[in-house]
Amino acid sequence: MQSSRREILAATAALGAFMAAPPARAAAPQAGQQAPAFYRYKVGSIEITVVNDGVSRMPITDDFVGNASKSDVNAALEASFLEKDFYAGPYNPIIVNTGAKLALVDTGTGETGFQSSKGLNGRLLLNLAAAGFDVKDIDAVIISHYHGDHINGLLKADNSLAFPNAEILVPAQEHKFWMDDGEMSRATKPRVVFGFKNVRRLMTPDILKRVRTYDWDKEVIPGVTAIATPGHTPGHTSHVVASGNSKVYVQADVTHAPFLFARHPEWHFMLDVDPVAAEATRRKVYDMLVAERMLVQGFHYPFPAVGHVEKSGSGYREVLVNWNPTI
Amino acid sequence: MQSSRREILAATAALGAFMAAPPARAAAPQAGQQAPAFYRYKVGSIEITVVNDGVSRMPITDDFVGNASKSDVNAALEASFLEKDFYAGPYNPIIVNTGAKLALVDTGTGETGFQSSKGLNGRLLLNLAAAGFDVKDIDAVIISHYHGDHINGLLKADNSLAFPNAEILVPAQEHKFWMDDGEMSRATKPRVVFGFKNVRRLMTPDILKRVRTYDWDKEVIPGVTAIATPGHTPGHTSHVVASGNSKVYVQADVTHAPFLFARHPEWHFMLDVDPVAAEATRRKVYDMLVAERMLVQGFHYPFPAVGHVEKSGSGYREVLVNWNPTI
Repeated sequence: MQSSRREILAATAALGAFMAAPPARAAAPQAGQQAPAFYRYKVGSIEITVVNDGVSRMPITDDFVGNASKSDVNAALEASFLEKDFYAGPYNPIIVNTGAKLALVDTGTGETGFQSSKGLNGRLLLNLAAAGFDVKDIDAVIISHYHGDHINGLLKADNSLAFPNAEILVPAQEHKFWMDDGEMSRATKPRVVFGFKNVRRLMTPDILKRVRTYDWDKEVIPGVTAIATPGHTPGHTSHVVASGNSKVYVQADVTHAPFLFARHPEWHFMLDVDPVAAEATRRKVYDMLVAERMLVQGFHYPFPAVGHVEKSGSGYREVLVNWNPTI
Repeated sequence: MQSSRREILAATAALGAFMAAPPARAAAPQAGQQAPAFYRYKVGSIEITVVNDGVSRMPITDDFVGNASKSDVNAALEASFLEKDFYAGPYNPIIVNTGAKLALVDTGTGETGFQSSKGLNGRLLLNLAAAGFDVKDIDAVIISHYHGDHINGLLKADNSLAFPNAEILVPAQEHKFWMDDGEMSRATKPRVVFGFKNVRRLMTPDILKRVRTYDWDKEVIPGVTAIATPGHTPGHTSHVVASGNSKVYVQADVTHAPFLFARHPEWHFMLDVDPVAAEATRRKVYDMLVAERMLVQGFHYPFPAVGHVEKSGSGYREVLVNWNPTI
């Protein structure tokens, strides 16, 4: 008598547990560390690589938002399913490879990161290496503004140049403000005073030899145009990377983390040098991004930090791109 | 006369362009390919690694959603800033490392991927290797249901076992349905008929020797419990991975891509074997996820495919976790 295929299958399945038990082996160890964090996409013929520097982890202080309470901030964190009482702000420099130039836009928190968030940031050099970049090949570092999480990575822990062959392209207005002794002497807000001290620490002769200022509304390098977005700092600059019919608006800190400051464009962040001007810039840029459905790359967006913006309630909401397995 | 620091800095910056021009070098080549796509997180003492298999790229057919038009689907795609007329559905198997067991939940589209989306999927083995996994170390493959994008990866292109030392743990109800010759003979919908053919092709003697069925509401392996979520297929199963006070709901295809089917829980997807039951399951699970603010891992969510769910309009919206640089 011949068994039917169905009977054989049923019997096989039932016996499977006994027949197929693999020989006992040691359990595979857990990896214990995150994947490298980089992500590539094309803008026309330009290849962009987002290279994550990690995140901050700062307690929410009473002055974190000048015109909102700590409980307002916690409500916004909770609405985004995030831990309360802490600000985990992502840092996302990008590499722009035009084919002729290899430029890094902003540098992250530096090789050792911010000590207040030990181990969580200062990851740019690791992730650049994981993405296959040799720091010696970087021709240009383009700086958006002079806050530590954007410039500290210019120097390595031993104060040598992190990008030894790169020109350092900085916004003229920003350089003028932070290098002006009169402005420094008139600064009163503790975070601005600290900002001046950090800039002066960082601007070693080695750095200054490589600094070249650029102007708003002009190309910084071919394909990358500087856009005035002052407020967060006096010379705060965004960039439009464009090629063919494609472009992306690289917004730097027009909003800090969008889960707080795009949702609440009216909030005045403690690090804004001029929070009223920062809010005006933010509303203008975000209304444009919504109207034009323009791709935006946000330094403090969650990695991979590139997406679109929609209106949401009385503010805006970012919609990150879906991960693309090819580019 | 001594120059002031300010004068020196200004002069240095102005000269920088001439002094610091690096020697001409060949431009760095563009990478031309995406980063590996894997992402780790902990659930108590269990380490989960999301390992992306790529995405589909299917034209939106008139029957893509049984009770919505192609223009309705295009409107939903446009609302999520996605290309119209195509369905780019992500595939995200996960590795569950309990410390004692190394289990893969679902297998993706197989080594060669779906030919209709050539090169965009079939990336699981590449990404497993990038994440440091040896396929020989995988003890168990846990299957949610018998659609090709979940089971085809059990076999390599040459029909050998992709995970040669793994037991294959399958939902009892699902195995019974697709292996039943009577059910097969009664199938009329072309996609269900194709499903039967694909399952029978895949269930080689080598596979069947390793198959062991599991029941709903029981642990499949320690820490992973099977949850009945029928409708998409008769034996469609979700899993709760739990350890200590933490858990994640691994939803398989309770919704297909959330940018379509979480936003529109009322939509009947062409691959649902019983779309009415699928909708009932979807509403029940999503109301629970919202009420409990429970972490959810979605096979067809955009990578890294883990997040939370909120109510949005007449449906739901996923809020992916922010990328964590450590685990």
